[in-house]
Amino acid sequence: MPQSKEELLHKHPNDIAETIQSLESTEQSIAFLLLPGELKGEVFSYLDKPTQETVLKSLGSKQIAEVLQAMPPDDRTQVFTDFPDVLIKETVNFLSESERKMALTLIGYQEQSVGRMMSPYYIQVKKHWTVEQTLRHIKRVGKKAETLNFVYVVDDAFKLIDDIRIGRILMAEEEKSIESLMDYQYISLVTTQSKEDAAIVFDKYDRDALPVVSEKGVLVGIVTFDDILDVVEKRDTEDIQKFGGLEALDLPYTKTSLAEMLKKRAGWLIILFVSEMLTASAMGYFEGEIEKATVLALFIPLIISSGGNSGSQAATLIIRAMALKELKLSDWWYVMKRELVSGLLLGIVLGTIGFARIAIWQEAHFYNYGAHWFFVALTVSVSLIFIVLWGTLSGSLIPFVLKRLRLDPATSSAPFVATLVDVTGVVIYFLVAALFLSGKLL
Amino acid sequence: MPQSKEELLHKHPNDIAETIQSLESTEQSIAFLLLPGELKGEVFSYLDKPTQETVLKSLGSKQIAEVLQAMPPDDRTQVFTDFPDVLIKETVNFLSESERKMALTLIGYQEQSVGRMMSPYYIQVKKHWTVEQTLRHIKRVGKKAETLNFVYVVDDAFKLIDDIRIGRILMAEEEKSIESLMDYQYISLVTTQSKEDAAIVFDKYDRDALPVVSEKGVLVGIVTFDDILDVVEKRDTEDIQKFGGLEALDLPYTKTSLAEMLKKRAGWLIILFVSEMLTASAMGYFEGEIEKATVLALFIPLIISSGGNSGSQAATLIIRAMALKELKLSDWWYVMKRELVSGLLLGIVLGTIGFARIAIWQEAHFYNYGAHWFFVALTVSVSLIFIVLWGTLSGSLIPFVLKRLRLDPATSSAPFVATLVDVTGVVIYFLVAALFLSGKLL
Repeated sequence: MPQSKEELLHKHPNDIAETIQSLESTEQSIAFLLLPGELKGEVFSYLDKPTQETVLKSLGSKQIAEVLQAMPPDDRTQVFTDFPDVLIKETVNFLSESERKMALTLIGYQEQSVGRMMSPYYIQVKKHWTVEQTLRHIKRVGKKAETLNFVYVVDDAFKLIDDIRIGRILMAEEEKSIESLMDYQYISLVTTQSKEDAAIVFDKYDRDALPVVSEKGVLVGIVTFDDILDVVEKRDTEDIQKFGGLEALDLPYTKTSLAEMLKKRAGWLIILFVSEMLTASAMGYFEGEIEKATVLALFIPLIISSGGNSGSQAATLIIRAMALKELKLSDWWYVMKRELVSGLLLGIVLGTIGFARIAIWQEAHFYNYGAHWFFVALTVSVSLIFIVLWGTLSGSLIPFVLKRLRLDPATSSAPFVATLVDVTGVVIYFLVAALFLSGKLL
Repeated sequence: MPQSKEELLHKHPNDIAETIQSLESTEQSIAFLLLPGELKGEVFSYLDKPTQETVLKSLGSKQIAEVLQAMPPDDRTQVFTDFPDVLIKETVNFLSESERKMALTLIGYQEQSVGRMMSPYYIQVKKHWTVEQTLRHIKRVGKKAETLNFVYVVDDAFKLIDDIRIGRILMAEEEKSIESLMDYQYISLVTTQSKEDAAIVFDKYDRDALPVVSEKGVLVGIVTFDDILDVVEKRDTEDIQKFGGLEALDLPYTKTSLAEMLKKRAGWLIILFVSEMLTASAMGYFEGEIEKATVLALFIPLIISSGGNSGSQAATLIIRAMALKELKLSDWWYVMKRELVSGLLLGIVLGTIGFARIAIWQEAHFYNYGAHWFFVALTVSVSLIFIVLWGTLSGSLIPFVLKRLRLDPATSSAPFVATLVDVTGVVIYFLVAALFLSGKLL
């Protein structure tokens, strides 16, 4: 026997929930509806899943929203996890702009996911509707819609089954059915996809908006291109800033406080500085050689910067190609082979110029590199080949390694690659010097 | 008296043109129309401007297109320059996709201008039309339109006077006039604007398409967001690649031939290499000092790379902010003031760490920097302050200088700034060394 309303109200929410659960399903909803507003949220949290579902299905969007607002946040998240499609569909879209944002956060969509950027303002139709019905529907809800270029067709379970250009509908006879215009070909995004992946889809299909479906295929929103443009610009700004060797700023340059700016810059600058200290250590190891052959020191900046520059070129190319999905992780070997050839050829070019520079300066008496100038030039030139090759290979491989470790490839900035190559460059240079100059200068 | 058709045809096109010019304006068009197709183009070239205008106005789009196709290219360009609005409006849009592209090129729109990317597929209405008329018009031409989200209202001279959301039209009473829905508020692009400026407008107003007007205000096309997305991605890819110290590729990494790739990379690599040779010259000047105080050489890569890194950070921030129009040329002094503070503080941070590194290594006996280690540490630390400040200021100023010279700021890549700072860094370092170490090590 169902208890009276008064009896129920004096009980603990958990007991009320149990009482409701014991009722027949038709009575469950009525009993729940009879509860005062402030109790609904708490009682709902205590209901078991089947009862929650029954109740949800009988409530209107507005009522669901009220219940959800009254629930403790963590319980609410659970409810969203249990009934994502019904709720996103019927509730979230009913909330105000700011509440919706909160709700989408609560549902647990990742910050960087499509779910967090979708809008509920789109035109959804059923396939058995006529063109006339559709046009009437558009008249009713079209004002709020973010795009009218497409209408989206869903089945009875609200699963997306097609998109139709508005032009086709406007030009069709009024009594025709939507089904007669359908081709069951459509492009859609999934709530859990990353925003940057969505940008790639937009880029490929030239749409001004794309429908978003839940993992079960239920149409839950659309993403419009203006948000995508923001995503693309933000992605590129972040990549560019990371690439310039600083942490990406959250705000435009002019809106970032000096303190914030210094924080974003000092971090990487210190990391790079501390890493670069290894060059001092490496050179310390060769101090004896430098003392014997001071002339070697003259070319150190030239040689290591060439490695850095070639590494920076390679890293830039690879990182950008990865961001635009032109390169996948599995392409690493293809890239290595290409960069091996590029690095070797670029190294030979610089090595030749380097040799010529020393030879010309020596012969034209611009500078005297000593009796063994030929071997000094040979050392510089052979080191350049190795270091440019090494820089090119590191610069192109590091983004792959970072991606493999699920880190952002853009972190392998020009300065980062340059620093790595600087340290190894010093070592390569002195090893080559030992090869060519021992018994002469060393 | 008009001459007979036979008489005309045996004359030189210039004479035919003169004959036509001598006729009354109503007869001019008829005489012109009677000419055989192959002659029309040439004769048209010889007509004076008023007669050309009369004839143009009496011809249908298709006929104008035929005449234009038959004209010599340079004369055609002249005609387009003389009558841009009529022709773009009535002719260009009538041509096939490939012909239109050619025509837009011929009109003389710059490669990077909005004029080159516009599409003729949009909905244009007049203000005295009723909603019903508009809907009928959409039914007729809507299929080809690239967007139906907005219709564009033009006056009798085809000047753009408003844009109206399709939702407003769909929801209005059928007998209402377009004028009753108008607010005379609209956003438009001009044919001569740069594509990148258009991207900024799209970004600001969140539209999926924007109308394009000629310099006289005549609606001549629309630009859709998908082209803008391409513009933004292309702009960013170019900036990123320039910033990585290579010439921007024309194609994706995977589609660029090895030879092309090497060409794009070798150029800048050689420029940077040759510039960096100045470090060898600068150091050559201080070879005596290095010989006396080998310990100084150990810190050269560390010190100059810090200048390069801080310069690269500053350049990245400024270049990106410029690309997004967050900074204008006139902001240079504001930026200088900010970067002066940033550079000084970052320099002090690195200088302190540098001093600590040497002091700790010395005291902990990791390395022996000699009796005057304190002054070596002081030299390193003070040099760092100056060099980081110098790098920061150069990195932020060079993009402004390039922009002032109407060059692309993105050319001041990280490697480019680093190279400049490397050379001056060597000089600063040895000057500071002379200050602190003369009489001791030097």
